[in-house]
Amino acid sequence: MSWEKIAADKKARIAASIPQEWRIKSEPAEVSVMDYPKKSGIMTAEELAITQSSATDLVAKLAQGQLTSVAVTTAFCKRAALAHQLLNCSLEFFPEIALARAKELDEHLQKTGKPVGPLHGLPISLKDQFRIKGLETSMGYVSWIGKYEEDNSFLVTLLLKAGAVFYVKTSVPQSLMVCETVNNVIGRTVNPRNKNWSCGGSSGGEGAMVGFRGGIIGVGTDIGGSIRVPSAFNFLYGLRPSHGRLPYGKMANSMEGQETVHSVCGPLTHSVADMRLFVASVLAEEPWKYDSKVIPMPWRQAEADIIKSKLSSGGLTLGYYNCDGNVLPHPPILRGIETVVSTLKKASHTVFLWKPYKHDFAYDLINGIYASDGGTDIFSELEASGEPAIPNIKDLVNPSLPKIDMNELWSSQLEKWTYQAEYLEQFRKVEEEIGREIDAIIAPITPTAAIRHNQFRYYGYASVINLLDFTSVVVPVTFADKELDKKNEAFKPLGEMDKIVQAEYDAEAYHGAPVAVQIVGRRLTEERIMAIAEEIGKLLGNEVTP
Amino acid sequence: MSWEKIAADKKARIAASIPQEWRIKSEPAEVSVMDYPKKSGIMTAEELAITQSSATDLVAKLAQGQLTSVAVTTAFCKRAALAHQLLNCSLEFFPEIALARAKELDEHLQKTGKPVGPLHGLPISLKDQFRIKGLETSMGYVSWIGKYEEDNSFLVTLLLKAGAVFYVKTSVPQSLMVCETVNNVIGRTVNPRNKNWSCGGSSGGEGAMVGFRGGIIGVGTDIGGSIRVPSAFNFLYGLRPSHGRLPYGKMANSMEGQETVHSVCGPLTHSVADMRLFVASVLAEEPWKYDSKVIPMPWRQAEADIIKSKLSSGGLTLGYYNCDGNVLPHPPILRGIETVVSTLKKASHTVFLWKPYKHDFAYDLINGIYASDGGTDIFSELEASGEPAIPNIKDLVNPSLPKIDMNELWSSQLEKWTYQAEYLEQFRKVEEEIGREIDAIIAPITPTAAIRHNQFRYYGYASVINLLDFTSVVVPVTFADKELDKKNEAFKPLGEMDKIVQAEYDAEAYHGAPVAVQIVGRRLTEERIMAIAEEIGKLLGNEVTP
Repeated sequence: MSWEKIAADKKARIAASIPQEWRIKSEPAEVSVMDYPKKSGIMTAEELAITQSSATDLVAKLAQGQLTSVAVTTAFCKRAALAHQLLNCSLEFFPEIALARAKELDEHLQKTGKPVGPLHGLPISLKDQFRIKGLETSMGYVSWIGKYEEDNSFLVTLLLKAGAVFYVKTSVPQSLMVCETVNNVIGRTVNPRNKNWSCGGSSGGEGAMVGFRGGIIGVGTDIGGSIRVPSAFNFLYGLRPSHGRLPYGKMANSMEGQETVHSVCGPLTHSVADMRLFVASVLAEEPWKYDSKVIPMPWRQAEADIIKSKLSSGGLTLGYYNCDGNVLPHPPILRGIETVVSTLKKASHTVFLWKPYKHDFAYDLINGIYASDGGTDIFSELEASGEPAIPNIKDLVNPSLPKIDMNELWSSQLEKWTYQAEYLEQFRKVEEEIGREIDAIIAPITPTAAIRHNQFRYYGYASVINLLDFTSVVVPVTFADKELDKKNEAFKPLGEMDKIVQAEYDAEAYHGAPVAVQIVGRRLTEERIMAIAEEIGKLLGNEVTP
Repeated sequence: MSWEKIAADKKARIAASIPQEWRIKSEPAEVSVMDYPKKSGIMTAEELAITQSSATDLVAKLAQGQLTSVAVTTAFCKRAALAHQLLNCSLEFFPEIALARAKELDEHLQKTGKPVGPLHGLPISLKDQFRIKGLETSMGYVSWIGKYEEDNSFLVTLLLKAGAVFYVKTSVPQSLMVCETVNNVIGRTVNPRNKNWSCGGSSGGEGAMVGFRGGIIGVGTDIGGSIRVPSAFNFLYGLRPSHGRLPYGKMANSMEGQETVHSVCGPLTHSVADMRLFVASVLAEEPWKYDSKVIPMPWRQAEADIIKSKLSSGGLTLGYYNCDGNVLPHPPILRGIETVVSTLKKASHTVFLWKPYKHDFAYDLINGIYASDGGTDIFSELEASGEPAIPNIKDLVNPSLPKIDMNELWSSQLEKWTYQAEYLEQFRKVEEEIGREIDAIIAPITPTAAIRHNQFRYYGYASVINLLDFTSVVVPVTFADKELDKKNEAFKPLGEMDKIVQAEYDAEAYHGAPVAVQIVGRRLTEERIMAIAEEIGKLLGNEVTP
């Protein structure tokens, strides 16, 4: 069968998985579909309320039997069905399996009076990189279609133990190595706030799905921004934990076995409270007893409490930068950083300008690592079906590059380690100067608000953090505003990339696009950075903890 | 200058670093030099007592001013001088620098009344792989001689902050990739208990030095047994922590930048008490703020306490194996395992037979990883001076092997990860069967007692643990005994390697050679495994905690 036929068949199967009564009659004309669920007539008022709730609230009600998992799962299945029809964001949709599982969980609770775990009955959406027994994992490649998994990814196994319900696997870009979401299987996934904007990538299906509230907690992966960019573009919180905190074992991946820079998995959520629920629930299952790469480090409440105690006396000490020296962010992002900084200062925290350390060097280094097999892995996946490469991966994976050899790899790895240690030295030096511990660094995550299609060029704000393996939490801040965010006509480019990125800004086109920042901490500081992100979210009015 | 001249000059400089009054008149005739310090007339009774003490005891006395660092440092410098003259175990000896540092520390204590840190005034010996500013690091290569370091390894920096005194850097085999200690700079290092036996390797200089009590805590590195084998061959305790627990940054290394299997550093000591002193002191310096590869995981007393509470109720649950399926250990080692098992059973612990999981596969996999650059790195080091390779590295690094390419490396890395996860699955399965948590596995660390020169062939008991990145502590058990450890005449080899190893056994030649086991736990279980090793050492009468 030709790749086009295989892809068309898969696309048709996804469409067919949506029950007749959840199908939309006609595509809305508006660029934003955020209001659609309310207006559709397909969802009941209770279903709307459930999907507009928080995971923290839902699990409490599910555990007490105030809500059934069937009701919650039905609500999210319906909204996810709408999401897919409007945004093209699913690669697997399986409401029947989900509802059967929900029913089992409801019966268990009724029989025993006890939830099976901290996520009892809660629907969780997964990027189509997670393996679920019996289902396909397309990874955005046509050649993967038609292969049915015989095992679960470890995180899937552990989330099931914690009581989660799976119902959808969301769209990814071909190869995963892109911060937009487009593939030859179903095409492009778009942003629910404006179909002309990207949902981000590579966990872009998650970004769109959770942004639209077709999901309440979505799980993505990040090797160069792939959790954080979709979080930012969909006004969500997103966690890129450090490598070794959450289990990645038995997942599909691009360039599987590549360990120089590890991809990590993490949640995309509407609040830090929900993020914490997810992380603490996974850690409670002792993932280190399954996945050898997971560090035996349970949830450290004491670390979160250190931040809480600083909040009540002395305040936080936070560095920030609004330019990494390579590419100046667009005006909405500069205003986003400024908003966070001034909000923190008003709340009596100490905020100082952080000098980004050799981010140009780091950006080149990680790009070399991404390309270390000269694209062999990705191109063999394409060859297997005959599908063409999406245009977006040309920049990252260049078939004219040779593979680097073993000793060159070792040199790169040593350069990486040295750079990481030098970065830690910067922390120590500044801490000595200011006489206080640095709690986190506030930085852009992309140079643009939710970007127009095919315009994502510069990965450095995200990927340098991956090279450092620092913990990062994306916090939604505000929306681009054509009145406030005027184009900087006096702009002088720092270089070729900066020129290209800046040329893309158009106050009109970006009006209303989500603006976010990332809160970055040293390696394996998840509890502290989440607590700081929560405080910033609260100060901004964007953390709606129940 | 020819490599022979460079080496001879270095060797002469080391000899010249020993003050006249510490020089021995004539080489002793006996094969064992363990009694030499007492008989030499060079060391005072107090110096003998200091060097026969424990680090735990010494730091307590140093902190209280009951002993000066100058006295303690002098004692160890003298004994180390004897060690080098008898065993050929030093590549750098610098008593003047050490005594100047000791004097400073004594003055600090006198002035402030406070020790600078938990290791105040304590001499610590280092493998000649650690960088100390102003000194050479030969790594056993002639080509490295004459280069003087401009920076310290992180562990050196942190040990200095903790109050340690450095005085010697000990011998290593050329390339480090050998479990004996021989190089073209100073030749071969021998075992203090019998000059016909190896001191082990690659931290063999540490094994000989600490075994002879020319050091009280020695620091080595281990990528395939290099801490554990010298510990075993010198009747010492040795810790191979999991990767990421102790700082390795800024150290010299073979195949620097290779990250598929990480070399780790750890202590060789006379007791677990001293081992704990070392580990807890290093962790108290927050090494994760210096070395990006170190996990922010302080000393976890709660983990050690879990073992203690099991000791007082219910006992430990321990697996053991005496054969990995590849090579059957010599009779003294089989008796060593048997001794530990019966001793534990007598003390009411639960001991069961563990089935080694695919150790043959794992051994081949790690050997492929060691050879992944086809010897390029090592051979370029040799080429730089023109020195020949030592015969021992032929087995491990074969210049006829091609480098593996990037995608082959990724496959190996994926195989490694899968194997590690499968091993964890074995743990879970057995735990489910027996209904108890497995606390550790008892296993041989080498198939032989302290081996005769040039006979070290089989690395599998050690290196499979490196592939798994499991925590391992070597515990000294007993000594080979020609009456008890008769050659097994009915032996049928499991394979070619087994045949070679078994043929080496000779009850007479090995009589008196140290016998050890390793106690192995899952990744990053240092506190628990040390507590278990301490209990086993106590039950055997070999842990002489003050």
